[in-house]
Amino acid sequence: MSRISRRGLLGMGAAGVAGVAAAGAGALATRALIEEPAAHAESTGDPYPFYGRNQAGITTPAQDRLHFVAFDVITSKREELADLLQKWTAAAARMTQGRDAGPFGSVGGPLEAPPDDTGEALGLPASGLTLTIGFGSSLFDKRFGLADRRPAALADLPAFPGDELSPDISGGDICMQACAHDPQVAVHAIRNLARIGFGRVSVRYSQLGFGRTSSTSRAQTTPRNLLGFKDGTANIKLEDTSMLRDYVWAAPGDGPAWMDGGSYLVTRKIRMHVETWDRTSLGEQETIFGRDKGKGAPLTGHAEFDEPDLAKTGPDGQPVIPADSHVRLAHPSLHGGARLLRRGYNYVDGSDGLGRLDAGLFFMAYQRDPRKQFVPIQTELAAKDKLNEYIQHISSGVFACPPGVTDAGDYWGRALFS
Amino acid sequence: MSRISRRGLLGMGAAGVAGVAAAGAGALATRALIEEPAAHAESTGDPYPFYGRNQAGITTPAQDRLHFVAFDVITSKREELADLLQKWTAAAARMTQGRDAGPFGSVGGPLEAPPDDTGEALGLPASGLTLTIGFGSSLFDKRFGLADRRPAALADLPAFPGDELSPDISGGDICMQACAHDPQVAVHAIRNLARIGFGRVSVRYSQLGFGRTSSTSRAQTTPRNLLGFKDGTANIKLEDTSMLRDYVWAAPGDGPAWMDGGSYLVTRKIRMHVETWDRTSLGEQETIFGRDKGKGAPLTGHAEFDEPDLAKTGPDGQPVIPADSHVRLAHPSLHGGARLLRRGYNYVDGSDGLGRLDAGLFFMAYQRDPRKQFVPIQTELAAKDKLNEYIQHISSGVFACPPGVTDAGDYWGRALFS
Repeated sequence: MSRISRRGLLGMGAAGVAGVAAAGAGALATRALIEEPAAHAESTGDPYPFYGRNQAGITTPAQDRLHFVAFDVITSKREELADLLQKWTAAAARMTQGRDAGPFGSVGGPLEAPPDDTGEALGLPASGLTLTIGFGSSLFDKRFGLADRRPAALADLPAFPGDELSPDISGGDICMQACAHDPQVAVHAIRNLARIGFGRVSVRYSQLGFGRTSSTSRAQTTPRNLLGFKDGTANIKLEDTSMLRDYVWAAPGDGPAWMDGGSYLVTRKIRMHVETWDRTSLGEQETIFGRDKGKGAPLTGHAEFDEPDLAKTGPDGQPVIPADSHVRLAHPSLHGGARLLRRGYNYVDGSDGLGRLDAGLFFMAYQRDPRKQFVPIQTELAAKDKLNEYIQHISSGVFACPPGVTDAGDYWGRALFS
Repeated sequence: MSRISRRGLLGMGAAGVAGVAAAGAGALATRALIEEPAAHAESTGDPYPFYGRNQAGITTPAQDRLHFVAFDVITSKREELADLLQKWTAAAARMTQGRDAGPFGSVGGPLEAPPDDTGEALGLPASGLTLTIGFGSSLFDKRFGLADRRPAALADLPAFPGDELSPDISGGDICMQACAHDPQVAVHAIRNLARIGFGRVSVRYSQLGFGRTSSTSRAQTTPRNLLGFKDGTANIKLEDTSMLRDYVWAAPGDGPAWMDGGSYLVTRKIRMHVETWDRTSLGEQETIFGRDKGKGAPLTGHAEFDEPDLAKTGPDGQPVIPADSHVRLAHPSLHGGARLLRRGYNYVDGSDGLGRLDAGLFFMAYQRDPRKQFVPIQTELAAKDKLNEYIQHISSGVFACPPGVTDAGDYWGRALFS
C-alpha cells in the first residue's frame, strides 16, 4: 500500500513508523482509527450502532438486502449541501436504530404539513439497517470549493476492455448504501433521505439487490451468486484485523486527513447472461471459475477454504487451475497481495425485451486505494478472464466514503466541509 | 356471481342447486373443490404442499417476496407446449419442497452437460416457495387449438380512464407467480422454469416485488404499501371460507370445466409518484384514503378493523369518509358485495431518469370472475378516486389460473389440453 508521509503522521499526533513497508504501512497510526462492529446475530432485527470511528455497512456482517442510490447535487450552494449532510446524518442516526426519519413521530406532525416520515416502515424493527455514504469525484469540481480536497485515490477508473458502461447509471456526486435484512426498511431509508434532500439533490440512479454475494464475517456462510457458484470465499472478513488495516481503511498519510478511517468504494453493475451460462456444461463452468460448483472447493482441493494450488499441473502438464480461470486471475498473489472487501448483491431488473432475464451482480468493493487494488485486479480480469464471455460491466462508480460519525455533534463529511 | 348452469353441475355429478342466488351460488358443488392450505408459521423455511385441489400461492399466507414472470410461447406445436407444462409441473413439485429443479441433484449430472439446476438456491430451505401458473387470453388464439376452451371470464379488460399501459409489460401467454420468504429462492424457481422452457417459451416481462401489501390470513399483521398506509385490511383471508367460495374459486358452471377450482388473476403495475405524495399534507393523505395513517382506522372509527361508516356526516354535513376517498370507492357495498383476494407487492425498479424513484405497487388480485369483480371496482376507482393524482396504471394482465395438481400423474393445465 502507499507509504505514510511524515506530515500525515505528525498531523495525527503519531510518529516513528514512516517508511514501514507496504503491507504493514500505517499499522500503528491506523489501529486507533479502526473499530469493528460486533458480529451481531445475522437475522435479528437488532440495530447496529450508528456512531463509530468507521462507518457501519463496510465490515458489518453483510445483510441480505441492498438499496443503493447515487445522487446528483442540484444546489450550487456549499452551505446548503453541508446543511443537508447534517440533516441526513441526524435522520440516519434515527433510522438505523429502528426509529422514524423525523423529529415528530413516524406519521405524526400537524395535519396541515407533510408527515415527517413516509411511514412504510412503521412497526418494522431496525432490521440491521446500515447507511453508508460516499462522495464521488464530481463533488470535487469547482461548484463547492472542494477541488483541493479531492483525494488522489478518488481517481477515475481507466477504461477496461469490454466495458459497456451506461453514463445514466454510473458515477454520481454522492452515493448512499442502505443494507438491511428487510428490503422495505432499506427502501424506506433511501426514500426518506431523498425526501429530506428535495431541492438539493436528485436521484441519479438507484439499485435494489436481493442476495448478498459475499461474507464479511467468519460467522457467515458463503452465499451463491447468480452463476450458481459460492462467492466471496476468499473475501476479507471483519475478523481479519491486519487485512482491514492494510487493504480497507484509509490511513493517515494516504491522502487528505478528512478520509483517515474512511474507505473507497468501487461499484460495478455486472450483467450476467444467465441463459447462455445455463446452457454451458458443468465441466466448462467449473473450469472457468477454477472451483467445484457444489462445494466451492478449488479444483486442486477438496473443501471450500482449501487454498488454491496455482502451481499444480495435471497429467497433461497443464495447470489444474487454468491460466484464464477466475480464481487464478483474481488471486492476491498476482497483485502483490492486494485484496478487496467485497459486498456485492444479486439483482434482477425484470427482463431485457429479448426474452431474457435482466440479471446479474451489483458488485461493490471497499478498499484503501482503488489504484492499487481494484484497478490492477480488474485490468487482469478484463484482459484474460474466460468468464467475460458471460458477463458485461454496464455501470461504474468510485466513491470516497469518509470515516464514521463519532457522536451527535458530528456529521457525515464534517472534516471535508470544515 | 354468475349462475350455475345445469350442464356444468351435471358434468360434476351434482344437481339441485341451479338457480341459487348470486352470493351462495355453487356452494354445494364448490365445497369439494376447495382445500385451503394450513396457515403455516409465516417465516419458517417449511415447504407448503404442492399437490392439492387448488393451486398454492393464492390463499397461502402471503409470503414477503415475489418474482412474477409472463412468458410468450414461441413454439407453435401444441404437444411441445403440453410437454413443457408436464416438465414444469415436475420441476415445481420439486422446487416448492426445497429440492433442485432436475432429476440429477442440484449441480450434478455429467461434466459434459449443463447442470440440471442453476445452483444459486443450493443449501437454502424451501422458504415457503409457491409457484402459481395462469393462462392469458392470447394462449387461446388459433395456434394451439384452444379457442373454444377460452373461458368467457378471461375477457380483455376495458380501457380505464387514466390508463397508460405499456404493451411490453402487459399480457403474456402464460404467467408464473413465485412467492417465497427469500427472493433468491423465488428468482431461482422462475429462472429454472425459463431454462426448462428454452426454445418453447421466452420471457416477456418479469417483476420483482419485495414487501407484501396484503394479508391473506388472519394470522398475519396488515403490512404497509409505499404510500405508507396499511394495505389489505379488508382483504379476503383464507379463513373466510364462504368468501373464498363466492369470490375467489371458479365453480362448476361458471365456465369451462377445466377451470373448476381455479381462479382468475388480474395484475396491474401501478407506478406511485412517491415524491409528490411525500410533499402532501398528512390530512390530505388521510382524506384521500379515508383512513388514519398511523393505525389504519377508518376516519369514522378508532381501530384498524372497525367497519367504515360511509353514511356518517361531519359538522359541515359532508360525509366523514369523503365521496372520492379510496376506502369508499373500493367498498364492497358499492359493487354488489364484490370483493377481491389481493396479493400485491411493493416494487422499486431503480429510478426514472428524472430524479425520482421508479416505485409503486405490483397489484395482483385473484377472483372468480373479473367481469363482476375487478372491472366494476376499477371502473369506479378510475373515474373518481382522488388517489389517481398520485398513481398511474402502467401494465395490465388477466390470467386464468387452473385448479391445483392433484398428484404426480397430473400436470398444470392437463384438463385444458386433454
